[in-house]
Amino acid sequence: MSTLENRQFKLTSRPVGMVKRSDFEFVTTPAGEPGPGEALVRVLYLSLDPAMRGWMNAGRSYIAPVGLGEVMRAGGIGRVVASNDPALGVGDTVVGMTGVQDYAVLKAKDLTRVDPRLAPLPRFLGALGMPGLTAYFGLLDIGQPKEGETLVVSAAAGAVGAVTVQIGKIKGCRVLGIAGGPDKCRYVVEELGADAAIDYKNEDVRAALARHCPKGIDIYFDNVGGEILDIVLLMLARRARVVICGAISQYNNIESMQGPRNYMSLLINHALMEGFVVFDYAARYPEGMRALAGWALSGKLKAREHIVEGLETFPDTLQKLYRGENFGKLVIQVADE
Amino acid sequence: MSTLENRQFKLTSRPVGMVKRSDFEFVTTPAGEPGPGEALVRVLYLSLDPAMRGWMNAGRSYIAPVGLGEVMRAGGIGRVVASNDPALGVGDTVVGMTGVQDYAVLKAKDLTRVDPRLAPLPRFLGALGMPGLTAYFGLLDIGQPKEGETLVVSAAAGAVGAVTVQIGKIKGCRVLGIAGGPDKCRYVVEELGADAAIDYKNEDVRAALARHCPKGIDIYFDNVGGEILDIVLLMLARRARVVICGAISQYNNIESMQGPRNYMSLLINHALMEGFVVFDYAARYPEGMRALAGWALSGKLKAREHIVEGLETFPDTLQKLYRGENFGKLVIQVADE
Repeated sequence: MSTLENRQFKLTSRPVGMVKRSDFEFVTTPAGEPGPGEALVRVLYLSLDPAMRGWMNAGRSYIAPVGLGEVMRAGGIGRVVASNDPALGVGDTVVGMTGVQDYAVLKAKDLTRVDPRLAPLPRFLGALGMPGLTAYFGLLDIGQPKEGETLVVSAAAGAVGAVTVQIGKIKGCRVLGIAGGPDKCRYVVEELGADAAIDYKNEDVRAALARHCPKGIDIYFDNVGGEILDIVLLMLARRARVVICGAISQYNNIESMQGPRNYMSLLINHALMEGFVVFDYAARYPEGMRALAGWALSGKLKAREHIVEGLETFPDTLQKLYRGENFGKLVIQVADE
Repeated sequence: MSTLENRQFKLTSRPVGMVKRSDFEFVTTPAGEPGPGEALVRVLYLSLDPAMRGWMNAGRSYIAPVGLGEVMRAGGIGRVVASNDPALGVGDTVVGMTGVQDYAVLKAKDLTRVDPRLAPLPRFLGALGMPGLTAYFGLLDIGQPKEGETLVVSAAAGAVGAVTVQIGKIKGCRVLGIAGGPDKCRYVVEELGADAAIDYKNEDVRAALARHCPKGIDIYFDNVGGEILDIVLLMLARRARVVICGAISQYNNIESMQGPRNYMSLLINHALMEGFVVFDYAARYPEGMRALAGWALSGKLKAREHIVEGLETFPDTLQKLYRGENFGKLVIQVADE
């Protein structure tokens, strides 16, 4: 085992503004060996998530920050190459928080075995993984969609947004997606089935929403925060629900976060804004996975991954995510399957 | 009837920033006569409400703006001096939207008769009126207080806040009030029964809240918005509820409203922020009034009014409200009882 070379990205400074390559150290060490109850996993794909930027900050959040000098946190999918736990065997395909590295030693109980015949492996990091579950619980539990309601989803071509759009349609909503650029907008309508898409890079979002939502917005599933949240707030229908899933437009701000200036629209419309993280629903993951897998098998849940090759690209690929340059769930392929 | 002189404040311009005397015209006209189904009311006391500033702005809200040239909207309590409806008799004491004037002609169905022996008349504009109902529905319906939870109330010595503090105690919460100045803080603790009060004018609110709420804040009943909302957001407990009742600190801003920069705390803590106006609960007013009157009669609901004499003081008295210079529910006495 100890002859396996393990490349790792370690966080060495807390980023100010946009994350940079110099915030990390790229080192090579021998892969560890699994102790009792542990397994050694060959990482195949890594998930690039908007939440990563928050994990790099010091201070209280829903999860401890990545410590300086520690391997950068990331979800990944890989194959067991050595196991010291009866629950996992060599060759098993597993998902877990592998970190940004070639090999990870993890407790077997922190790994979830998946069936690689069900879907392409990167999908288990997207529509059939945490982003899919995030969409599922956020939309259904907080958004409470009812047939005929108007649902607006930001970052609608992104990993979470794309699933949210489709579950919205499954639940009978009229769905408007907001995405950046004509290609993503076409994808949101033609592939994901949204009733319309708004290109925030080339359209006046306020005018487009006003045109598409004459009776107001019943549910806003927000992945971006910032200006778009403020625009939507002014168009809420009575008893609207704003699901705060993320605020990617704000994560790399050097200045303090921009708060929703139009939040008094909550008062005017008796509306609510509620936040969550997917971990809040850990006890219900099996329910969510069953639903997502069922929709995927019946063709109702489509997905797209954006695969970048090479662990060494990590800092640049992460920047791509915050710039909105990915199209589909962004993953890094670390090794051949 | 037509010999009665009626002084009126009419809105003549939309205020920019703090409301000013020059935004109104003070005129005298003959009092009108009640048509079929109407009554003529001699206004005795007028309610000064934070919401008035919003009613003066153009644009969509939960209620139409006061038109330019129209009598300024206000709730009031008065006595029927002429009635053209069988439901009301001369001498009845009634509450309704009388406007800022000596006499109002109103539909009988828009007036609520009250029993003047139950409480001092101004109280029907405060703890036993809209502010009391606002506290009742906002705290119970949105705040959902549970025994032992920590409730923080801003503007705790104000008309709504004072009732909220007391209902919070009735429901078994630990209650912290935030108010301006030592006199109000003493009142909040000694009269209203809060467990502690924080003087935002003379204390570091962040430090005081951290000291008083080691396990976080379960419910925040917000009447003020601005900096205090942002401070509280950072101290929410898991599954906290933020009740958006008002934002008095922001109503006279010339710049755009300050949004809650720390709203991502909703995500971290799976918390919600929900707004309302009391009119949303019109169908349940009888329930609320019964509860408030019951608590008042049993001594559990105390109240205090700040009475300013003279209709002519209206613009200055309203400024007093926005400067936090009132102590208790602010009313103008228009005529002797």
